[in-house]
Amino acid sequence: MSAPLLAIQPSLTPGDANSAARPGGSVSHSTLDNGLEVVVIPDTRTPVVTHMIWYKNGSADDPLGKSGIAHFLEHLMFKGTKKHPQGEFSNLVAELGGQENAFTSYDYTAYFQRIGKEHLGALMAFEADRMCNLLLTDEVVAPERDVVLEERRMRTDSDPAAQLDEAVQAALFAHHPYGTPIIGWNHEIENLGRQDALDYYNRFYTPENAILIVAGDVEAEDVLKSAQETYGKIPARAESPQRRRTQEPPHRAHRLVTLLDEKVEQPAHERVFKVPSYRTAQPGEAEALEILAHMLGGGPTSVLYETLVVDQKIAVSAGAYYAGSAVDDTRFWIFATPAPGVNLEHLDQSMDGVIKNFIEHPLDVERLQRTKTRLIADAIYAQDSQASLARWYGESLATGLSIADVQAWPARMEAVTAQDVLTAAKNWLDKRRAVTGFLLPEATS
Amino acid sequence: MSAPLLAIQPSLTPGDANSAARPGGSVSHSTLDNGLEVVVIPDTRTPVVTHMIWYKNGSADDPLGKSGIAHFLEHLMFKGTKKHPQGEFSNLVAELGGQENAFTSYDYTAYFQRIGKEHLGALMAFEADRMCNLLLTDEVVAPERDVVLEERRMRTDSDPAAQLDEAVQAALFAHHPYGTPIIGWNHEIENLGRQDALDYYNRFYTPENAILIVAGDVEAEDVLKSAQETYGKIPARAESPQRRRTQEPPHRAHRLVTLLDEKVEQPAHERVFKVPSYRTAQPGEAEALEILAHMLGGGPTSVLYETLVVDQKIAVSAGAYYAGSAVDDTRFWIFATPAPGVNLEHLDQSMDGVIKNFIEHPLDVERLQRTKTRLIADAIYAQDSQASLARWYGESLATGLSIADVQAWPARMEAVTAQDVLTAAKNWLDKRRAVTGFLLPEATS
Repeated sequence: MSAPLLAIQPSLTPGDANSAARPGGSVSHSTLDNGLEVVVIPDTRTPVVTHMIWYKNGSADDPLGKSGIAHFLEHLMFKGTKKHPQGEFSNLVAELGGQENAFTSYDYTAYFQRIGKEHLGALMAFEADRMCNLLLTDEVVAPERDVVLEERRMRTDSDPAAQLDEAVQAALFAHHPYGTPIIGWNHEIENLGRQDALDYYNRFYTPENAILIVAGDVEAEDVLKSAQETYGKIPARAESPQRRRTQEPPHRAHRLVTLLDEKVEQPAHERVFKVPSYRTAQPGEAEALEILAHMLGGGPTSVLYETLVVDQKIAVSAGAYYAGSAVDDTRFWIFATPAPGVNLEHLDQSMDGVIKNFIEHPLDVERLQRTKTRLIADAIYAQDSQASLARWYGESLATGLSIADVQAWPARMEAVTAQDVLTAAKNWLDKRRAVTGFLLPEATS
Repeated sequence: MSAPLLAIQPSLTPGDANSAARPGGSVSHSTLDNGLEVVVIPDTRTPVVTHMIWYKNGSADDPLGKSGIAHFLEHLMFKGTKKHPQGEFSNLVAELGGQENAFTSYDYTAYFQRIGKEHLGALMAFEADRMCNLLLTDEVVAPERDVVLEERRMRTDSDPAAQLDEAVQAALFAHHPYGTPIIGWNHEIENLGRQDALDYYNRFYTPENAILIVAGDVEAEDVLKSAQETYGKIPARAESPQRRRTQEPPHRAHRLVTLLDEKVEQPAHERVFKVPSYRTAQPGEAEALEILAHMLGGGPTSVLYETLVVDQKIAVSAGAYYAGSAVDDTRFWIFATPAPGVNLEHLDQSMDGVIKNFIEHPLDVERLQRTKTRLIADAIYAQDSQASLARWYGESLATGLSIADVQAWPARMEAVTAQDVLTAAKNWLDKRRAVTGFLLPEATS
């Protein structure tokens, strides 16, 4: 009975699917006649399977004026079909001791279950049924819209930090749909109706637009056979769904977004740069940005933390993050929380200094090697979780990468040079085109 | 042979069409069977007529990803029809001693001519012909797109102040299409083709979506008769065109946009507030904003000018402007040019002080009365130009107002109280939700 979940968490750090540490045999990848991609990831350690369906559409594919429809439909996908009325699917998963969830991101929507491997066929039948037979009535749509509106109130409208993030993101992506929050703008959610959900469902929920990922103690041919008997029955469309997105014009100005709210107790600073994603980058560039983010701000031994928190003592935390997994150009963040009494302008200038210093000096090659080793190790550890492994493949394929891209990632990380990292920093961490966010308590006047 | 013109100039200050100063008799307003609105404004002073066709669509109605199409189509409207090949219409106007022009704004596109009154019928026949018979070939579309791209390069891409305006406007309207420049984003203009233009033309260029304005020494019934014989022959559509626009979510954060460019010789400051337009405002609110703009920044006796330029000597110019004529919520600007050696942060804080002081003190009622008198007089003087008068009606009707709204404007201006102006300032000049723009020379490092 888990509620659908709005996923805006960081992408997984991918790992080496070909390394000795990878559980099970080789990953198989095939396509049914109706266009459904099928990926099978062997994992013989437990008798449990992870079953995921990924649709290659997310909030950035919401039609103009219908923001939030991808996420709203994710909620509505739990409302049942003619064959399996509301609750039956979730009850089955629970009764069989399984887990289920769903998430909507900018670029994809995914549904997953974990369950004893003997029940995989049953899950497929249910998931295939709701891929084409969703039943929506006004009676279920209207109350669920209230649930989403309440979700928005709780997560965003009552949280100044979330409001700042929305405003920063809107300033960074003024024309591209990543500037619109995944959950949607309140005034548009309020007007989403049954027909909007059905139109969106009919447009995107098709086998050609979906990827089935199964990880577990299963044979690829058995999975393919079951997939053929369930998903394979759904006819392909004459035209497969297309993403149609506006692209951002070149940025020329720095934008500072300041949010003042009396609820703010802890001021905060963030800076966001528009950078290439794994899909849009030149070869090696995204890997360099990934390493750059970790060297600058990946934990207490990173440059930002050491300088701002340990040495200068003007911040109580500092970090950086690269959201590399995206269909279009994406975000690179640096952020810090000021120490008591330190104002954000001072912290901002110190951050500028850290970046400038980083770019103008030779790279610490030991730090570079430590970072690579750690990132690749992290990726291997992440594969220890069957669900993480499945999710890593799903997210990569759903954002336009291939199985080969995924599997070559550790080798590409190893190949990144000190010069690549410095070049990425010089090219992309250009404050003149970035957005800076200040979160401050409202001045009581 | 005048080139089509991209109009982003301030709206006209409307005037009192019922006052004794109004030229000619009463304005007539009727609608043909096919939905075309016809407005006739008598002006017997000269034997010249102004003929205008206003379409109720502008750049804010450009389809997603096709920014610039309204303006591009305005250019293409001069490319001829089967009956009147390219150049014939413009040559006729020139040979008959007339003038012509066209302009695209956020909310409308308009075509106009001024000519001896005996030629009005001929103009109508030509304009009606290109309302439904436009002929476009790839041979004319591609070179004209290069003309538009060159127009963009000249006016925007080589002008840092214009670039700052674009970035400020994009930050103010992150979701509403007023955030996209009228001329379009370069990467989208580059992809506009013949079919895009035709689709847009077929959607919007219809009699139901148009307003004919004729001002001059003409009788309303003669104009109606000619209109019926020309425009009246164009059949109405089954469905009349609709604007479909996303609306902006509530703003919660201040945004500072800083553009640095080595070409900048004179730094500049602007602040833009999102405020109601004449169409979206509560009764009397837009008029109060209009008066507020003039009291704050309408010339050398305004509050901003007197304080920043005359008294404090920290600026060499300062002003304010309310873009009240808009279908949706619109912009209220204040702006200043710093005196040599004065930095923008200092100027910014002084501006804050001027606004705060204005709001916290009783209004100077003499200044209020002077402002009203001047604005109403300006409107009367503007009517002295036949083209201004015609344009004022066209712009008002095309943005959703009525003839009655136009004619009641002076009375509504007179009715604005000191409290109304202070309330408008308190409600809308809220820096916490505004966008500030800084134009600065690039630091030479």
